[in-house]
Order: sequence, then C-alpha cells, then structure tokens
Amino acid sequence: MDQKAEQKQEEQVQSKPQQKQQQQQQGEQKQKEKQLSVKNPKGTRDFLPQQMVIRRQAFKIITDVFEQHGAVEIDTPVFELKETLVGKYGEEGGKLIYDLQDQGGEILSLRYDLTVPFARYLATHGYKKLKRYHIGKVYRRDNPSIQQGRFREFFQCDFDIAGENDPMVADAELIKIIDQIFSKLDLGPFQIKISNRKLLDAMISIAGIPKTQFKTVCSSIDKLDKQPWKEIRQELVEKKGVTEEQADILSKMVQLRGEPFQLIQQLKDQKLFEQQGKEALDEMELFFNLLKYMNGLKNVIFDLSLARGLDYYTGLIQETVLLGGQLGSISGGGRYDDLVGMFSKNSIPCVGASIGIERIFAILEDKYKKSGVVLRENQSDCVVATIPSKNIDMTAEKFKIYDLLWSNGIKADVCYKLNWNLGKQLTYANDQQIPYAIVIGEDEVKQEIVKFKDLIEKKEETINLKDLVQVLKQKVGK
Amino acid sequence: MDQKAEQKQEEQVQSKPQQKQQQQQQGEQKQKEKQLSVKNPKGTRDFLPQQMVIRRQAFKIITDVFEQHGAVEIDTPVFELKETLVGKYGEEGGKLIYDLQDQGGEILSLRYDLTVPFARYLATHGYKKLKRYHIGKVYRRDNPSIQQGRFREFFQCDFDIAGENDPMVADAELIKIIDQIFSKLDLGPFQIKISNRKLLDAMISIAGIPKTQFKTVCSSIDKLDKQPWKEIRQELVEKKGVTEEQADILSKMVQLRGEPFQLIQQLKDQKLFEQQGKEALDEMELFFNLLKYMNGLKNVIFDLSLARGLDYYTGLIQETVLLGGQLGSISGGGRYDDLVGMFSKNSIPCVGASIGIERIFAILEDKYKKSGVVLRENQSDCVVATIPSKNIDMTAEKFKIYDLLWSNGIKADVCYKLNWNLGKQLTYANDQQIPYAIVIGEDEVKQEIVKFKDLIEKKEETINLKDLVQVLKQKVGK
Repeated sequence: MDQKAEQKQEEQVQSKPQQKQQQQQQGEQKQKEKQLSVKNPKGTRDFLPQQMVIRRQAFKIITDVFEQHGAVEIDTPVFELKETLVGKYGEEGGKLIYDLQDQGGEILSLRYDLTVPFARYLATHGYKKLKRYHIGKVYRRDNPSIQQGRFREFFQCDFDIAGENDPMVADAELIKIIDQIFSKLDLGPFQIKISNRKLLDAMISIAGIPKTQFKTVCSSIDKLDKQPWKEIRQELVEKKGVTEEQADILSKMVQLRGEPFQLIQQLKDQKLFEQQGKEALDEMELFFNLLKYMNGLKNVIFDLSLARGLDYYTGLIQETVLLGGQLGSISGGGRYDDLVGMFSKNSIPCVGASIGIERIFAILEDKYKKSGVVLRENQSDCVVATIPSKNIDMTAEKFKIYDLLWSNGIKADVCYKLNWNLGKQLTYANDQQIPYAIVIGEDEVKQEIVKFKDLIEKKEETINLKDLVQVLKQKVGK
Repeated sequence: MDQKAEQKQEEQVQSKPQQKQQQQQQGEQKQKEKQLSVKNPKGTRDFLPQQMVIRRQAFKIITDVFEQHGAVEIDTPVFELKETLVGKYGEEGGKLIYDLQDQGGEILSLRYDLTVPFARYLATHGYKKLKRYHIGKVYRRDNPSIQQGRFREFFQCDFDIAGENDPMVADAELIKIIDQIFSKLDLGPFQIKISNRKLLDAMISIAGIPKTQFKTVCSSIDKLDKQPWKEIRQELVEKKGVTEEQADILSKMVQLRGEPFQLIQQLKDQKLFEQQGKEALDEMELFFNLLKYMNGLKNVIFDLSLARGLDYYTGLIQETVLLGGQLGSISGGGRYDDLVGMFSKNSIPCVGASIGIERIFAILEDKYKKSGVVLRENQSDCVVATIPSKNIDMTAEKFKIYDLLWSNGIKADVCYKLNWNLGKQLTYANDQQIPYAIVIGEDEVKQEIVKFKDLIEKKEETINLKDLVQVLKQKVGK
C-alpha cells in the first residue's frame, strides 16, 4: 500500500467527532482563503493592457485638443489638507469625501475633483492667470456601478481658464473645446447643455423663495435629468418648504429649453428676466454669439433646468450628454469666480470643464469589442530565434543581436526559454502578434547573415547581419 | 477728521488691557490666515507646467525602453485593501503606510509601492506570465526632504517580468533595461550594484546567526550604503543579539565588492560559499554571463553588502546609484518568487525594478536651469490678432480664422482681451513664446488675405486666406 492510499484509509477510520473537527478546520481554511486579498477595493478598477491602449488613445485625443488651445499641463497631489476640501461640494458631495486616518501630523482627504485643488494651486503659487489641463484620479465614496462607469476611483480630465478676461470669451472657447473633443472621440451624437447659475438664482428669486433656501432648492433641481419634474416638485414642497405657488412659478421657467437664440428671444418676449437676471441673459446672448463665430453651436442647447449641484459655480454652467444613452453626463463644469478667493486675497475668475473619461473608456472598449479589430498589446517588431548548435554558444549569439537591435532603437521582445526549438520560438512570436523573426543557426553565425522571416506574409529572405538594422527600420517605417 | 484717522485715535486711547486683548485677537486673526489651506500637504509637490514638460520627457525615455523590450502597460488603484499590504515591507516600511479612515465598508491603505499591487493584480486576473510596466504614485509617511527628492507622495516607474522562465534570463534583461534607461537619461556616471538575497542568507547563516534573526540582521546590513560598517556592527552586537565572533565573520564577507567575474573567482578561491550559497553563486555566474552577452556589464558591480530591506526578495537584488552624488538610489529591485503565492494558489516567479523618478526629475530640472535652455510651456504655433474696425465685426472674423485653424489641427492660442490694440496682442504672443501671428484688419477681411508675421525672425508676408493652413503646416513641420 503506498503512502497516499494509507493516508486515505486512515481518514476513513476517523471517528465522527474527528471528522467534524476536520470539516470545521477545512471550513476555516476555506474562509481564510476567501480572506486573502486577491481583489481590488470595491468601486475601483485595474486596467488590463488592452484597456491601457484604449485609455492612452483617448487621453491623446483629449490632450491634443487641449494643447491646440495653448493649455499647459499641471499636476497636484492625490490628497489635500481636509480643510481645503470641506464646504465646496454641496449637500451631497461633502458626504462622499474619503478621509485619511489621523496617524499624527496633518489631517488629509483624497481629492474629490480637480477643480478645488486647482483653485488652491493658483493661490499657493500666486498665479494671476493660467490656462491649464490636468488629468488625474479623483475619489468619491459613492455607490459604484461598473456598468454605468461610476467608480469610487476615477479619472477626470480637466481644462480650466483662470484670469481676468473679457466677458464670455474664455467661456465660449471652453465649449468649443468640448465640442471638438467629443466630435473627435466619435462616440455618437451628443448634446452640450448650457445655462447660467445667475439665471437659476433669478428663477428661484422670482418664484419668491428666500435666499437662504437657494442651495437646497438648487440641489433638487439638479436631479431634473434623472427624475421627472413632478417628483422634484413634490420634494420641493414636502421637504424643502417651497409653497405650491412658488413651485408653480418655478415650473414654468425651469423646464424651458431650446435652440439658444430662439429661447433668448422667447424669454425676452415673455419678459421673464426683465426685473431679475437681465444681466445674465445679456451675458448668455454674448456667449452664444461668440460660440457661433467659433462654429461651436452645432451640438449646443440652452437648458434652464441645468443646475449643477456644486456650491462653487457663479456663472455659465454646462453638461454634456450622449443622445440615446443612459450613461449620465460625459462632461460638466462652469464658471467659478469666487473659489480662488477662498484661498487667497486675490480672487481670480475661472471657467472650466471636466471630461468624464471613465464613461468614455467604457464606450470605446465596447466599440473595439464589436469592431473585431485586434488591439496589439505587445508593441515589439521582432524576436531573435536560434537553431541549437553543438559548436557555438547560440545564447551568446542571440543576445549579441538583441544588443544590436536595442541599441538602434528597434523594439525586440525576448522569449525566456533558451532551449526551445525553432518552431516553439516562432509560435511564441505569433502568439504575441510580433510581425518579424530573425533566425540564426551555426551557418548564419559563421557567414554573418540572418534569416529574416515575415511572420504575417509567411516569407523568408536571407540578409547580411550588417544590413539587419536598416532592413528592420524600413519594414517598421522608422 | 476722516473715519480712518478717527479709528486710529480711538485705538491710541485704548487702555492697556484693551490693547492686549486686541493684540491677542490680531494674533488669532494671523493664526486663522495661516490656517487657510493654501498649501499642499507636507512631503507632496505640485508640478508646475515647466516641471510637467521635463516629467513627460523623462517618462517618454523610460517607457520607450520598456516598450522596446515588449512590455505592456497596466494600472491599479491608488489604494488597496489594508490586508493586501501588511507584512510585506520589512521592519521599517510597515510603519510608513498611510491608512484611510474607516468610514464604513472596506479597510483601505494607500499603496506603498507598485510591486505588491502587481503581485495582487497577477492573482486577481489569473495571469501566469506578464511583462509589464507601470507608472504611478506611491505613498510613504516618511520624513520628507525635498532637497534629496524624498517625498511622501512620489512616482515610481516599475518594470517587472512574471512567469516560469529559464534561470536568470529575465534577470539579465532587467539589468540591461536599467542600463539602457540611465544611459539615455544622461544623468552622469552611475553604478548598478548587484547581489543575491540567497548569498546574504548564506553569509548570515555561515556566521552562525540563527534563522529567526535573518530579517532584523538584514535590515541592519541594508543601511551599509548610508552608515559605516563600524556603526552597523555596533547595532548588530548591541541591539540585535549578534555575538562579536559572528560579527567578525560577517565583517569579512559583507564588505566584498568588485568586478563580477573577478569577485566570483575570489569567492571560489577562498571557498567562501563552498558549503552554503554555492547554488546562488553559480546562479550569479550564469547571470553575469548572460548580461555580458547583452553588453550590459559596463556599469555593473557585484556588491555583497547590498541587502534591500524589503521582505519579499528571494534571489537577485539590485540598486542603482549615481556616482559622486548624495542622492541615494535611483533604482532598486530584485527577484520575488514567493510574493504572488501569498495571493494565489499559483505561485509565479517574478523579477522587477523600480525607477526612482523623483530624484531623476530633480537632476533634470537642475540641468535645464543650468543650461539656460528655455522650455516652452505653451505649445501653440500662432495667435490671430486683429486691427479694430468700425465697419466689420472683427471678433467674428477673428474666431472664424481660429475655427479654420483648430479644425485643421493647428495649435492656436487665444488672447482673451478683444479690445487690445495690435501691439498689445503681439506682446502677448511674444510673452508666450508663440512664433507666429496672423494679423487681420478691414482690408485683409475684404480681400480674403492675412498678414503672416514671423515673431522670431521679425518678418512679415501677405498670403491668401485659403493658403493659410498649408503655409502654417509647412512652417511648423507637419
């Protein structure tokens, strides 16, 4: 009887209590295995190599547009002093901030967006104007939904223009940039919703709602893209102390939306903002005219229901949605003229937008899957494969050629099995979708030649070793 | 007497206690102003636009080399489950981990390096092999020193090769890659120190130190690059229970360093690793041979004092230092064959290195400053400047041209002052180091021409509007 069988028999003669004990131990073992941290935290994602390729393509398109408009790039730490962030993100937002444990020293929180850190950055470094972009991860203890591209750790791409400028010029350029980016990303038809926080304030004021309730009413109206007005109205009346009459007045205004110049005409005809909000309406007319000059109106709608829940907006607000999708907004932002003043004596007017890149990744990944196009992860152009020899150290010869290739900037991947036969080495290259193989054996080494295999076209030619780099550079188009 | 003077007089007649109270209030006020969060957290840095340009250049050099060797890119979240990180970073490291506050849900910590997350990643996604690079920020509650490039938040560039491979092939390629990167970064002469954790274990064992003390003795030896052996020896004897005799034996071995093949011969002649560590020494001989074939030995030294404090190393260890500098290591790493096995039933051998990019940034920034070369932050190729007109809306004409440029991929920066005269507009372009200005006035609009100004060469020509894009593309080399 061999050892294994012996063990088995021993197990079979165990008493019931012994068995139970063992089962319990096994259960604990299983439990322990479960507890091994093989998972990433909830609401976060690992990027696989293919996803990284897509991510880089998307970032490239976006940053190219930013740079086309003269923006420079900056970066800030992933955490800020807690006091930098508090009180900036409205009723809901504040609850979602991740705090770091107090381990002695400063009290820190993970950044919730890139806008407040930007305002702090302007103050810290004493900038008076800056046109910058910033790509970085932000953190929200939100209820994650991977399907909808809603994460707890996610990228934002922000573009902001800070400085004392002529009215609405930077605002218009910002929307032009958003239009360019989403046109180039080619995600399908989209709509850029535009409004002005001052118009919203005027509407709430016209309805007779006291100023102290502005924020909370605002935060209800902000849900209008997800809930029908009936429900919002109910919330306003039942929970936020708005009277039926006030709600009726709001109703008429808050649901207005349409082609910018038509809606402006309508608002003027109805004399809606005659007493309050007139200045804001004039501002919007100037804005839409500038955007028209830039040929940026194609995908724009003027939408008085737009609220944006964040506390810091003071003027233009915007949000971009994909038409026909259920993905929520793919960009958002607006003007925040008072935020920098919270950190510095010198207030600096700013306008900016944030691109919701995670949702865009999801769409692009889906597009690739459906297209059947295979994304190459391994960017190598070739491998060096060897035929075993008894007389020559082929490993030395192989790596001499690798050194030649690498020192000339050629991308060459190494197969780490030195004793594989030629067939296996070529299969490795094929699996990695590497297009060329350089094959050497005893004869090639002696004659200072190589076999040059095109693995896609299934062709082979013999070339001199001294021509190898040049031939490869030609083939890969360098 | 005006109000201010009145106030002043009032102040002068204050009683002493009043004055004291006021001083106290002013003190508090000052305190409060200080408390405004205009600073970034201790040990972190904001990247200014010029620093971002340098950072991108450095990343490009490094990732180009990684990709030359067939590596793919991945990304992981900035925080991990706390249990993923505990017990991986040695005596000192563990204390430096940032924990997130328990706000309900999972217990999280900020990543301390990219290696443990990589091991977790391999387990999570069931990889059996992967050659990847990863650039990301890591976090250590260390004592920061901006001068020395030691931050609490800092970038690491990691390159790792995971999978069952032939012995030392991946290890040799790894060192070749490090050699290529530091040669290309051109920071000055550098040295790649190489040893093997198994040799260190053998040395400690040969000295007769019990196995239970390996880790703590290791962590002392690890300081040998910063402290003289005398001090280390004292620590070992006084604090770590090593006998004088054991320390003497260690002394002889731990300070050996030299040209790889010479040192190997010396160790063989002295029969130092005859009984223990023989296998490791053979491994090192194979390794140095492979690296020789790859032409990667130029900057390498075999250094038995190298320890690397982290718990997870099992074989080759390496560290790169700049010669003549006081900056500490600019890369470190080694083989960690058992780490993935902590997260998965399938253990995967791995070898990798981490590039200490913050120190490299510091050197490159310094180089740029000294060179006097001006780094352009704003990448724009041109501005459109207008001459005011009473008959034509020049703002509309200006932005029509911007639309033409942007839609053709030209980088064109906007000056947000619409009523500035031409001189001011051109000064703006000069300040931003933008090379070209397109100038239009009433005549140009009517004739569909533009004045094309070369701001560097101080030349001007008149060209047709329809040729503008083509001319600009030629000028900027697209």
